[in-house]
Amino acid sequence: MRPGWERGGSVSGRAGMGAGRGRPESGGYRAVTTAMGRKRSPRADVSGHPVRYGTARYGTARIMRPDDANIAGNVHGGTVLKMIEEAGAIISTRHCNSGQGEPCVAALARVERTDFLSPMCIGEVANVSAEITYTSKHSVEVQVNVMSENILTGAKKVTNKATLWYVPLSLKNVNKVVEVPPIQYMHKEQEDEGRKRYEEQKLDRLETKQRNGDVILPVINPDRQMKEPHTVGYSQSSLIHLVGPSDCTLLGFVHGGVTMKLMDEVAGIVAARHCKTNIVTASVDAINFHEKIKKGSVITISGRMTFTSNKSMEIEVFVDADPFVDEPQERYRAVSAFFTYVSLSKEGKPLPVPQLLTESEEEKRRFEEGKGRYLQTKAKRQAQMMQQAQMMQQAAQH
Amino acid sequence: MRPGWERGGSVSGRAGMGAGRGRPESGGYRAVTTAMGRKRSPRADVSGHPVRYGTARYGTARIMRPDDANIAGNVHGGTVLKMIEEAGAIISTRHCNSGQGEPCVAALARVERTDFLSPMCIGEVANVSAEITYTSKHSVEVQVNVMSENILTGAKKVTNKATLWYVPLSLKNVNKVVEVPPIQYMHKEQEDEGRKRYEEQKLDRLETKQRNGDVILPVINPDRQMKEPHTVGYSQSSLIHLVGPSDCTLLGFVHGGVTMKLMDEVAGIVAARHCKTNIVTASVDAINFHEKIKKGSVITISGRMTFTSNKSMEIEVFVDADPFVDEPQERYRAVSAFFTYVSLSKEGKPLPVPQLLTESEEEKRRFEEGKGRYLQTKAKRQAQMMQQAQMMQQAAQH
Amino acid sequence: MRPGWERGGSVSGRAGMGAGRGRPESGGYRAVTTAMGRKRSPRADVSGHPVRYGTARYGTARIMRPDDANIAGNVHGGTVLKMIEEAGAIISTRHCNSGQGEPCVAALARVERTDFLSPMCIGEVANVSAEITYTSKHSVEVQVNVMSENILTGAKKVTNKATLWYVPLSLKNVNKVVEVPPIQYMHKEQEDEGRKRYEEQKLDRLETKQRNGDVILPVINPDRQMKEPHTVGYSQSSLIHLVGPSDCTLLGFVHGGVTMKLMDEVAGIVAARHCKTNIVTASVDAINFHEKIKKGSVITISGRMTFTSNKSMEIEVFVDADPFVDEPQERYRAVSAFFTYVSLSKEGKPLPVPQLLTESEEEKRRFEEGKGRYLQTKAKRQAQMMQQAQMMQQAAQH
Repeated sequence: MRPGWERGGSVSGRAGMGAGRGRPESGGYRAVTTAMGRKRSPRADVSGHPVRYGTARYGTARIMRPDDANIAGNVHGGTVLKMIEEAGAIISTRHCNSGQGEPCVAALARVERTDFLSPMCIGEVANVSAEITYTSKHSVEVQVNVMSENILTGAKKVTNKATLWYVPLSLKNVNKVVEVPPIQYMHKEQEDEGRKRYEEQKLDRLETKQRNGDVILPVINPDRQMKEPHTVGYSQSSLIHLVGPSDCTLLGFVHGGVTMKLMDEVAGIVAARHCKTNIVTASVDAINFHEKIKKGSVITISGRMTFTSNKSMEIEVFVDADPFVDEPQERYRAVSAFFTYVSLSKEGKPLPVPQLLTESEEEKRRFEEGKGRYLQTKAKRQAQMMQQAQMMQQAAQH
Repeated sequence: MRPGWERGGSVSGRAGMGAGRGRPESGGYRAVTTAMGRKRSPRADVSGHPVRYGTARYGTARIMRPDDANIAGNVHGGTVLKMIEEAGAIISTRHCNSGQGEPCVAALARVERTDFLSPMCIGEVANVSAEITYTSKHSVEVQVNVMSENILTGAKKVTNKATLWYVPLSLKNVNKVVEVPPIQYMHKEQEDEGRKRYEEQKLDRLETKQRNGDVILPVINPDRQMKEPHTVGYSQSSLIHLVGPSDCTLLGFVHGGVTMKLMDEVAGIVAARHCKTNIVTASVDAINFHEKIKKGSVITISGRMTFTSNKSMEIEVFVDADPFVDEPQERYRAVSAFFTYVSLSKEGKPLPVPQLLTESEEEKRRFEEGKGRYLQTKAKRQAQMMQQAQMMQQAAQH
Repeated sequence: MRPGWERGGSVSGRAGMGAGRGRPESGGYRAVTTAMGRKRSPRADVSGHPVRYGTARYGTARIMRPDDANIAGNVHGGTVLKMIEEAGAIISTRHCNSGQGEPCVAALARVERTDFLSPMCIGEVANVSAEITYTSKHSVEVQVNVMSENILTGAKKVTNKATLWYVPLSLKNVNKVVEVPPIQYMHKEQEDEGRKRYEEQKLDRLETKQRNGDVILPVINPDRQMKEPHTVGYSQSSLIHLVGPSDCTLLGFVHGGVTMKLMDEVAGIVAARHCKTNIVTASVDAINFHEKIKKGSVITISGRMTFTSNKSMEIEVFVDADPFVDEPQERYRAVSAFFTYVSLSKEGKPLPVPQLLTESEEEKRRFEEGKGRYLQTKAKRQAQMMQQAQMMQQAAQH
């Protein structure tokens, strides 16, 4: 182990909230940034090692307030996503400015699939820790862990683990992507695994881009009173929001976290309309941010239910932006994603969900696609559990 | 003049921001509350006079932030309306609890027509002062003045004068209207004029209630790109908002000011879409709040242009509430109002406005009705100016 | 008494919320600003007296919302500090621009030690009144009183009295300190006492500057789960915030009040983690703002417990700013302060606090220093009570 790393780790490592320290899934990553030849600022280690202190890890905490939660007191998944994204934006902007390149702001490009492992409540403290785990020439991978803490009982639970990808945009020219200073890995495998993740997400981003290009008619808020309960039309919903200064980064574009919070809000309304009970976010599929949204735009966030299993609902959410004061530009699809919700009893146990009634051919097709995603996820999870069980068995045999 | 009043005035009078003290437009009202036989709290004047200190006036002030303004830096009319309503809610709740009745919260029932006399900018201080000017058995009239102050140059301008009507609802039973403790007037004429205003607004509230009862189809966000510029359909817009805890009063219903802020936001989007320039709120017609909106509801705020003069636009705004978790209740019309906007050049001068292109019979009818309101307002304003000129002439002759 | 002043007073006096009117501690100060030879704006009294209307006093009020409070419904000390600072910033900016100097914005330099005399609750109205009580060549002393008002019962309580020092910075050149127009005192003693306070705070500011300059290692947030409860490491916490437009003044620097609100938030998390009960801010030691924080910076606010008495906890809070997009500047310590918290039972009575377990030599040293501050404050308070008792005795004898 290199002494340079050791020192870097011993300071920057403790900057986090501690959530995830030593846990296997955060790997032995502990990324360290190199700043070789850096001239802009003498922040390198005094001993000359190419180490930048305090960059690699980041932690924050905030008490959950009434506005962060639904009527039942459960914190919105969107609140958590917004905190995750802010942590990611800070750590990656900081990292991208640690080299000798031009000043830049990291913009969210993608969030990998996230599971909400346990609900959080008003009054609990959300502890968010972030660390950079991979860098390509033009993008940064950040892993974020969220832990809920009941500060009255001391009880702690892992709430979320998320992986985000950021791209640094020049502060002077928002259309220019700046180069990312490389981080230094402890093992060759870390770099290799990171590159594999990088290639996979790149492929997936391309695919959604094509899917998003399809002409999907905006979900229009219907005369709900004429619809049958449990049909797609009955629960589909929209929110429309005027983008204000506080929604935006230094570059004047909407924070990815603000968009995700609104998306979760719509998905929650759809789910509540469908099953009329207390509902919470269970997971969010990978979200790709292809198009930036400018300050002053009007954004329409629409959600429609696509699939129900016995105890879960899948909701597809679209974000369309209308930069209405900029004459030439037309309304465009900025983001889309699938949210999975579950319905909870007063004791916090999952309740059965009324089956979605599909009417049109389109709805039936989307239901089948949703079923495919559901089964795929289920299979993946089972495989992971099998693997873990095997590992535990092996460990026990030694 | 009763000594009891004088003492009340000398204390309560200082509760205001001083803006308007002794100025003719705040009248010599200086209302005084009676608290005869009050048992809940021994707040009567020690000398036994039925006077409640500090009730009649109220003042507040706040620096305008980027989030309060549009891109050009002009503070939204809705921000001002929200501040006005908060001041009115505080002073009338305070007054309605000064008698011996049960604890209650004052709910906004109506705002009279308001003119925005001069624009406010980011960094300026908005000074708001409120005073109670009339009470009926079940309602309170509050007059609110807003003054903008540039704290760098010291320049002050009257921005708004508004008249609001509140109704006290029991804290224990939200459907019960509580009795209002009467205020004491300095002159008989004050009471008579107040009663006249009270009767007039009562009549007007009845009329809008009937109009609101009409089945008006929700304004559906169209495929704008297929519409001709300057048609009604081209600029019509909606916002959809999920009501959170911070939007609500102690009784769990949306603050009238929150609703008005969203209404102004939609009207501003419609106006900006129509004329693609910097636009500001010029006035708001009387708004009646017939129906409360409950926490957790989804509200749709829709706006459509109804009329254009050479230099102004009239936009009709509807608020529909959907208390979707409460099974039996259906979506209902909560409020509607007309907003007038003007377009400003970079120097702050009014610009010509493109004429509204009406297509359907309905649109033509609404245009004519808007023209009627426009001409009526114009005539009223001219009559007022004539009257003022006469008064000044008379004063000069003495 | 000069008639010019009298008129000034009769207007500006009404600008306050009435809180403090006639109370001895607001003195007969009623400072009056001079505007001799002012040319920038014709704001002098028509009669030619050097009086500036509406400068000397300022009042504001706001209803406390769910987001302003903790789960138990007690308003955060930080919310109150933020309101106090906004009032101070407005009144001192107004005053500093009343002379003939160049346009400027008052920046918070220091807040004297503040006690939270009684808790405030959601739904209550916070009434804030501010007045200028001393001016040196380059600084302004503002005294602010906060009174909580239950508008349902009419009950009022003094919540806070705070003294703030502001320094006017030129609008054109943020590094230039502008001269402050002198205020006019009613008695010679007022000026003398003010000068004494000025000299004292100047000395104290110098001292903290040196202490802040010390190399203080960042508060390291360890793996809490491995720490013993009631140790320093167990409760220490951090919060990270990206500075947005609404956090900043016209000059683009963070409002002192925004910083203090975040500091109180972290201190509250530390206190709650330590004693696992409902906790409230009891007092804040003097805070010196040595370094400005620029828009777009990332600020890290860290807190660690330093001392516990039987019924109180002292928490040290640091604010470090990282202006990461700005080329040359490195992360720096912007502010630090001590917050004292108490733990309350459901009936609002102070509860015993678990003793802080100190481990390292550093922690033991800080504990002893905290004990010193605690005993000093206690002695001061007893002396004040003795003095008051004597004064009451003397008054009774006459």
